[in-house]
Amino acid sequence: MSERPAGRRRRPRGRPRDTSTPAGFGEGPGGEQVEGRRAVRELLAAGRRPVRTVWLAEGSSPSPLLDEITGLARAAGVPVRFASAGRLEELARSAAPQGVVALAEPLRAVPLAELLARPDAFLVALDGVTDPQNLGAVARTAETAGASGLVLRRHRSARFTPAATKAAAGAIEHLPVAIVPGLPAALDEARRSGLWTVGLDADGPTSLFELPVADQPLVLVLGAEGAGLSRLVRDRCEVLARIPLWGALPSLNVSAAAALACFEVARRRHA
Amino acid sequence: MSERPAGRRRRPRGRPRDTSTPAGFGEGPGGEQVEGRRAVRELLAAGRRPVRTVWLAEGSSPSPLLDEITGLARAAGVPVRFASAGRLEELARSAAPQGVVALAEPLRAVPLAELLARPDAFLVALDGVTDPQNLGAVARTAETAGASGLVLRRHRSARFTPAATKAAAGAIEHLPVAIVPGLPAALDEARRSGLWTVGLDADGPTSLFELPVADQPLVLVLGAEGAGLSRLVRDRCEVLARIPLWGALPSLNVSAAAALACFEVARRRHA
Repeated sequence: MSERPAGRRRRPRGRPRDTSTPAGFGEGPGGEQVEGRRAVRELLAAGRRPVRTVWLAEGSSPSPLLDEITGLARAAGVPVRFASAGRLEELARSAAPQGVVALAEPLRAVPLAELLARPDAFLVALDGVTDPQNLGAVARTAETAGASGLVLRRHRSARFTPAATKAAAGAIEHLPVAIVPGLPAALDEARRSGLWTVGLDADGPTSLFELPVADQPLVLVLGAEGAGLSRLVRDRCEVLARIPLWGALPSLNVSAAAALACFEVARRRHA
Repeated sequence: MSERPAGRRRRPRGRPRDTSTPAGFGEGPGGEQVEGRRAVRELLAAGRRPVRTVWLAEGSSPSPLLDEITGLARAAGVPVRFASAGRLEELARSAAPQGVVALAEPLRAVPLAELLARPDAFLVALDGVTDPQNLGAVARTAETAGASGLVLRRHRSARFTPAATKAAAGAIEHLPVAIVPGLPAALDEARRSGLWTVGLDADGPTSLFELPVADQPLVLVLGAEGAGLSRLVRDRCEVLARIPLWGALPSLNVSAAAALACFEVARRRHA
C-alpha cells in the first residue's frame, strides 16, 4: 500500500505561478481523496475525472453498493485493490470511510463567470464555512435541490477534504465549484450579471418562506457557523432573509439552514 | 482533574432490574457530558437539571458566550474549573468542544404517553439513527421548529453522547425525549392517541410539500442513514411522504431531511 493520495501538482521551479485559473494549483476545490460508498459510487458513475485507484477493505460484508463500485471501476479500467480493514483505516482520513477510499484527479474549479452565465443560475455561496463536514453536507443538499453551482472564497474556507467528500456523498461530481478571491466582489459581479444576491441572516427583514425572488436567477449566501455573514458580504446582499424559528434555541446549524433555503428555491421554481 | 464524567449508576447485585421507568438507568437518553459553548450555555440557562462542574480551557480567547457561561454557572452555584487546553481535550469526547465541557445529571426520559397527550403534539421519531452527530443535529432542528418531543427506540439507536450534545447545541434542555422498546408499537399507540403517523420515504406517494396533515397532531418518522425506514415501521405509517429531489443524487442526509420535514410542519402550523 505504497500508493499515496493524489497530492498537489508540483510546479516546475523557477516558473511563475499560473494565476490564470480561477484558483491556481494547490488552491483548488480538493476532492482527490474520496471516501465512503455513496461518494465513491458517484465518482465512478459520473466519470467526469480520472480515478487512479479504488481501495476496498478486505472482508467487508457484501452490499449492492460495493458490487456497483467494483463493477463500475472494472468497466472504467480503474484498478481495484484490497487492504486490511486496519490499513484502510490508516489511509482513510474521514471518520467512517465504510471500507472504501478512492484516489482521483482533484476537482477543477470553474470560473465564476461560467456559473453566472446560466439564465437559470441557482448558486450557493459560503462565507467562511470552515468545517469540512458542513461544506460536504451543504454541497449534497444544494445538489439535490438542483443548484447550478457552489461559490467558495479562497481564504478561510473549507475545501473538499476526505471528510467533506464523504459528507458530500458524490455531490462534487455534479455541482461545479468556483473559488473566488473575495466574496463581496463576487456578489457585485453576480448582481451585474442579473442575479439576485440573497443572504441568510437571523435579523433579515424578509421571511425565507416569503422570498419574492426565489424563482429568479440568484445566489444564496450562507454565513459561517456561529458568526453569520461578514459585514462586507451582508452589505452586498440585496435581500436578507431570516428563517423563522419556533423553539427556544436562537439558531439553526448551517447545513439545516442550507437545506431550508435551497429547497425553498427549488420548490418555488418547480411549483 | 480527577473528576470523571457521570457514568451509569450501579445497580445493587441481586436486585431485579427496574423496568418501571421508561428507559431504566443506563438506558436513558444520556446527556451527562455536555460539550461546546452553545450547548453548555443552554444547559445552564435552562436550569432544568443539576450541573456538577463546568470545565473551561485555560487561555481561551474572551467571548461573550464564554462570559455568559461563567456568569450563569456562578449565579447557579456551579463550580467553574480551569484546565489546560490539552487536559480539556483529554476530557472532551467530541471533536471540537470549543474549550467547554460540563458534567451534569443525565437527562431523564419521559413516558411516551406524556408526549402523546398534548393536543398539539409534534413529535419526531427516529428509526435506528445510529450516528450521534445526526441525532444531535436532528434534535437541534426539531427544537427550533417547535417540535414537542423526540422518540428514540431503545436498541440500535444513538444516545446523547458528548458528540451528540455538542451537535444538539442545547436542544436537549428543552425537547423532551421518550425511549420506547419498539417503534412499531409506539406508532400504534400514537395513532390510538389521535396522532397522524407520517414516515419519510423516498418512494412515498405524497410530496412532503403537499402534506395534508401537517397542521394536525402528528409524529414524523425518520429512517436510518442509508437504509431508510424498516418494514415494520413503514407499515405503521398512515402517510408516506417523499421529499422531491431535483439533482442527480438519489437522497438527502437524515439531518437535511429532518430540517425540511420539521419546518414544513412548523410553517403550516404558523401560516
